[in-house]
Amino acid sequence: MRLKSPVVKIGNVKIGGNNPIAIQSMTNTNTACVNATVKQCIQLVDAGSEIVRVTVPDEISAQAIPKIRASLDAKGYENLPLVGDFHFNGHLLLEKYPECAAILDKYRINPGNIGHGKLHDENFEKIIKIAKKNKKPIRIGVNGGSIDPQFRKLPMAKAMVESVLSSAKFAEKLGINKNQIVLSIKSSDAKELIEAHEILIKKMKTPYAIHVGLTEAGSGTQGEIASAAALAVLLEKGIGDTIRVSVTDRDRTREVEICKQILQSLDLRRFGPKITSCPGCGRANNKLFLPLVKNVTDHINENFPTSHIRIAIMGCIVNGPGEALSADIALVLPGIKEPDFAAVYIKGKKAHTLKGKNIPQQFTKILEVQIK
Amino acid sequence: MRLKSPVVKIGNVKIGGNNPIAIQSMTNTNTACVNATVKQCIQLVDAGSEIVRVTVPDEISAQAIPKIRASLDAKGYENLPLVGDFHFNGHLLLEKYPECAAILDKYRINPGNIGHGKLHDENFEKIIKIAKKNKKPIRIGVNGGSIDPQFRKLPMAKAMVESVLSSAKFAEKLGINKNQIVLSIKSSDAKELIEAHEILIKKMKTPYAIHVGLTEAGSGTQGEIASAAALAVLLEKGIGDTIRVSVTDRDRTREVEICKQILQSLDLRRFGPKITSCPGCGRANNKLFLPLVKNVTDHINENFPTSHIRIAIMGCIVNGPGEALSADIALVLPGIKEPDFAAVYIKGKKAHTLKGKNIPQQFTKILEVQIK
Repeated sequence: MRLKSPVVKIGNVKIGGNNPIAIQSMTNTNTACVNATVKQCIQLVDAGSEIVRVTVPDEISAQAIPKIRASLDAKGYENLPLVGDFHFNGHLLLEKYPECAAILDKYRINPGNIGHGKLHDENFEKIIKIAKKNKKPIRIGVNGGSIDPQFRKLPMAKAMVESVLSSAKFAEKLGINKNQIVLSIKSSDAKELIEAHEILIKKMKTPYAIHVGLTEAGSGTQGEIASAAALAVLLEKGIGDTIRVSVTDRDRTREVEICKQILQSLDLRRFGPKITSCPGCGRANNKLFLPLVKNVTDHINENFPTSHIRIAIMGCIVNGPGEALSADIALVLPGIKEPDFAAVYIKGKKAHTLKGKNIPQQFTKILEVQIK
Repeated sequence: MRLKSPVVKIGNVKIGGNNPIAIQSMTNTNTACVNATVKQCIQLVDAGSEIVRVTVPDEISAQAIPKIRASLDAKGYENLPLVGDFHFNGHLLLEKYPECAAILDKYRINPGNIGHGKLHDENFEKIIKIAKKNKKPIRIGVNGGSIDPQFRKLPMAKAMVESVLSSAKFAEKLGINKNQIVLSIKSSDAKELIEAHEILIKKMKTPYAIHVGLTEAGSGTQGEIASAAALAVLLEKGIGDTIRVSVTDRDRTREVEICKQILQSLDLRRFGPKITSCPGCGRANNKLFLPLVKNVTDHINENFPTSHIRIAIMGCIVNGPGEALSADIALVLPGIKEPDFAAVYIKGKKAHTLKGKNIPQQFTKILEVQIK
């Protein structure tokens, strides 16, 4: 059961409450390079990202924000919320560049890296004042490297929770309300991330909107599987109003794709077709089965990427008819020594019997009729 | 907290209790082709599979089992437990081929597909008698297509639980004890799978050993991410003494790799290096950072695949020193406009400062010293 979090408006996208769990991503271009950043924002949105974050490390990047926004608007991406990522000097940049502050749809800050003690409080207050004036939400982030010094002696998970909650309370004291706050606790260790969120939800008296992500998950299979494992555990506990997958990959859209697959696999959102297929064990005629699964999967993903059809392709009679029951359309191929015909089920009922060498083509034809 | 399950011995591998969560896989060769099956078993074991299942659909496959075992033994794989997968005719094959029954280390059966009513009971009893005689464990499986008819009117998740528990109780009544029983409930839908296991653990009075897997998860990213999501949720609830990932892929070792990454990501087991790396946002010098992560990751995975070293490679100062704290060795590259040197941390302490064009080579050298 999803936690009841307050609704936070990030530009035109609402998160929290009963709103769909939103997918975020982040550019890796130099923000000062307006064209490259706009191009990548568009790639990310087109891939399915609903909120895009850009880093704002310096003055030239802060100056670029209005240009990036204008270019996105001109290209028809006026609905994309743009989030600014600030570290160390966010208070200075947001103060010096009011247009940047007015244009960004959310400020992502890390209170642990804007000084300590009195200096921290002053800097934090500057950011909150600007957020109040511009009616912008802020994301209060923490990770292992940016714990408030007063909590550093606590175990890591607890320290991160205390840190982020004390910043949130401070922000509220300064006049921001819960509809302008998103919390995020990040760790590169799934176990620590899960533990911290378990502590967080026990500790929060009234819930905040929460952004979740396994940070710096690494590259390749390791990064993707760890991200899916960590996020699935949190989402299944009802935690997470927005998510991001943070993997090292040249193709920035990969993190958006992984987010979609995680949300879809847990039935939290639906983005495209679901294609169930068995691994093809020793019972299956794998010379026919394996290429057929690949061809159908590629064909459907390329031509009908947003269809919500549920397809099952099964290699033999063992689980074939069973899987057909929960698919819109299913193809059950004959296993080794089984009678030489393939059964097509539509909504669980046997509808066609296919024979001969061109079973894949025959099935694709029937499939396309069903999709349309 | 892991559920306290009874220990089940599958050949030389113990599962349940405090034993490591074991990785299973399944061949997709025709079991009657002894050489091909042995070759694939070895590929799977070498990739990290600790239990291998082969399908036994017919007499010729049952006859092949002793030959497969002998060949594996001759090649030094005498410790690999071999599981036979039976459907429809397991009672007939195990009865007619006692050598096959004596050699297999576990019988995987699906009581829902060996007849109904009196016929089912007779067939089930035959299998249990053979398991008792040979002191072999059995895996009692169920999925949406093989529900005991008396439970078919229940909602699917509940029906699967009632089905598998009633079979387990019947097996115990016939004289098998809990140390010879492994339960498995399979679904291709993660939500249904999770729901069924939640019902199962509430319903079990004393726990059974449990094998978990998302069945027929599909191919590519969809199959892998859904498997990681579903299994992570169950494992985090303490459910699962053995796991299998069931994806459609020509490379059968892929499912073993995904299992390893799932278990490692949740700190349940450790198989190889952990390489933390950020995605390289707009703060990072990605021309240096992205290829460096790839080169180091490939180098480490190829040359030190079983090292337990924790490496962090970070693109800038924001999270770099923080991640260095929990890594054995960390490289923090200079972000854009940061001072032009890379810091190497060892066990959280700054140990080296690297400069110049060959930072990757310098880091690899230091890394290799740390690994050895």
